Amino acid sequence: MAVYTEVSDDELAAFAADYDIGRVTSCKGIAEGVENSNFLLQTERGTYILTLYEKRTRPDDLPFFLGLMDHLAGRGLACPTPVKGRDGTALRSLCGRPAAIVTFLSGMWPRRINPHHCAAVGEAMADMHRMGADFPLTRTNDLSVSGWRPLFEKARAGADAVSPGLTRIVLAELDHLESAWPAGLPTGLIHADLFPDNVFFLKDGGTGGEHLSGVIDFYFACTDILAYDVAVCLNAWCFEADGSFNVTKARMMLAAYRRRRPMDEAELAALPLLARGAAMRFLLTRLFDWLNTPADALVRRKDPLEYLHKLRFHQGLTGPGGYGLE
Amino acid sequence: MAVYTEVSDDELAAFAADYDIGRVTSCKGIAEGVENSNFLLQTERGTYILTLYEKRTRPDDLPFFLGLMDHLAGRGLACPTPVKGRDGTALRSLCGRPAAIVTFLSGMWPRRINPHHCAAVGEAMADMHRMGADFPLTRTNDLSVSGWRPLFEKARAGADAVSPGLTRIVLAELDHLESAWPAGLPTGLIHADLFPDNVFFLKDGGTGGEHLSGVIDFYFACTDILAYDVAVCLNAWCFEADGSFNVTKARMMLAAYRRRRPMDEAELAALPLLARGAAMRFLLTRLFDWLNTPADALVRRKDPLEYLHKLRFHQGLTGPGGYGLE
Repeated sequence: MAVYTEVSDDELAAFAADYDIGRVTSCKGIAEGVENSNFLLQTERGTYILTLYEKRTRPDDLPFFLGLMDHLAGRGLACPTPVKGRDGTALRSLCGRPAAIVTFLSGMWPRRINPHHCAAVGEAMADMHRMGADFPLTRTNDLSVSGWRPLFEKARAGADAVSPGLTRIVLAELDHLESAWPAGLPTGLIHADLFPDNVFFLKDGGTGGEHLSGVIDFYFACTDILAYDVAVCLNAWCFEADGSFNVTKARMMLAAYRRRRPMDEAELAALPLLARGAAMRFLLTRLFDWLNTPADALVRRKDPLEYLHKLRFHQGLTGPGGYGLE
Repeated sequence: MAVYTEVSDDELAAFAADYDIGRVTSCKGIAEGVENSNFLLQTERGTYILTLYEKRTRPDDLPFFLGLMDHLAGRGLACPTPVKGRDGTALRSLCGRPAAIVTFLSGMWPRRINPHHCAAVGEAMADMHRMGADFPLTRTNDLSVSGWRPLFEKARAGADAVSPGLTRIVLAELDHLESAWPAGLPTGLIHADLFPDNVFFLKDGGTGGEHLSGVIDFYFACTDILAYDVAVCLNAWCFEADGSFNVTKARMMLAAYRRRRPMDEAELAALPLLARGAAMRFLLTRLFDWLNTPADALVRRKDPLEYLHKLRFHQGLTGPGGYGLE
């Protein structure tokens, strides 16, 4: 949860006057997102999300992120649409920070994942990958394989205190990932952070079912191996709280994805390696945050060792069959 | 800011089904309130606030708080109305905690206070005092004069480290307050925490003006000296950020209050003493919180010394004329 910047009523009224959204009737800081300040904004015209981009988001990346949301929403993906000001620009400034208003999406992220959620996220991810194919901008994934060793070096001094032997495990795995990381797989636009709290579902009336109503938080989106996005999701959606891997969830996610976007043999064969890399990425960023989050921060730190456990699971596989591939 | 309890989508859907508010379409933890977990809840029927009462709110007090909001809203005060479940009760349970849904109020609390805000809060406070006259329940103010010395004893060991000499100042003031605290003044229902972040204003279209749109957070409301509520507001609304007392704001607040509810001579004469007491109350609770808030808490601590400064201002007055009384 995070609201780093307090927006005054007067500043907000002046800011909103540059849009065609009517008068502001309410603005409440919401406990979502750990990187930026987010507000649920109500106006005479509707409900929106106002985001103030804090220092961990590079201003140079914002045209990519906002342009991507605009592109995907225009193609029909259920994702926030940036709202443009009267001058036609969506990226504006408030309280000395870059700021944008996006449309509000109904739904709640699922706290208890079931296989149906995994199928729905597989389907939406495949749609997003296809829709992103003609997005003209690109952005390097600076949290991919070449970024991991430098990131670990910044956390190395504290690593073994978090878990004895962690340094040795990470260095050996980095050696492997750097030498074996696949080249030549299909690349494109990926979300790169498609965790459950970034996917909303809405319960259907009567039937008791639910459907995916939105994908949010494109602030790690980048141009990278498409199957790496799938690997991130295998880690984020298919492990149970007790650490066990739920092969039914993985099977349903992969099957739904492949119905919308077929994966070739090379992509499937690379999945265990990509999943190890995805586990390493979150292990390292969580380790770094664990060691560097001030004790009085308004953010709860996430356990890096959850991802050490996931890494070890993928290390133990002999092939993608471990994901229940049909 | 605070969201202490995470509510799952499934638990929420089951909880909401006991109300006649339609299906839940969104629920976001909001960064308001420091005592309880608050969520902005959207359903097919409208927008609501869902509150889960955490451990600092005594469950036995909840019928008083909810009954009071219901009473005041029924009398026409712009305040949240508790929403009753299908069985007619507003106080329910969610995630093992007492929970209630109240109506949503538009508006934002004023970050920069002007005299107009002070007049509006004076008027609303007087209305609330009159409307509360026939509310049948009572609740002792356990943060009034008899509660201050025991509260200070719990913080005494750390007091002088917060400000050298604080113990001596507080003990002398407690002696004075305990011996001089007035008896016989008009009592009734008071809010007891009517700070700017508990009062919403809504900007008017075109004119550039604004009007008071709501009073929230009745979780310190109690039965006590009515003029004590005024004294709390003199402290909360009429000091500038630099510590200076803005007599124009005080004059406008008091004049607006007295137009709606005349104050007798004894009440006016007691204002400086009541303001010293009100300053002591917030000095002590902030001091206690300062010393007892875990460093990793999700709440920002408020500076107790702001209230030491306010206490000293009132100590220096020779009578209520210092508040610009006309």
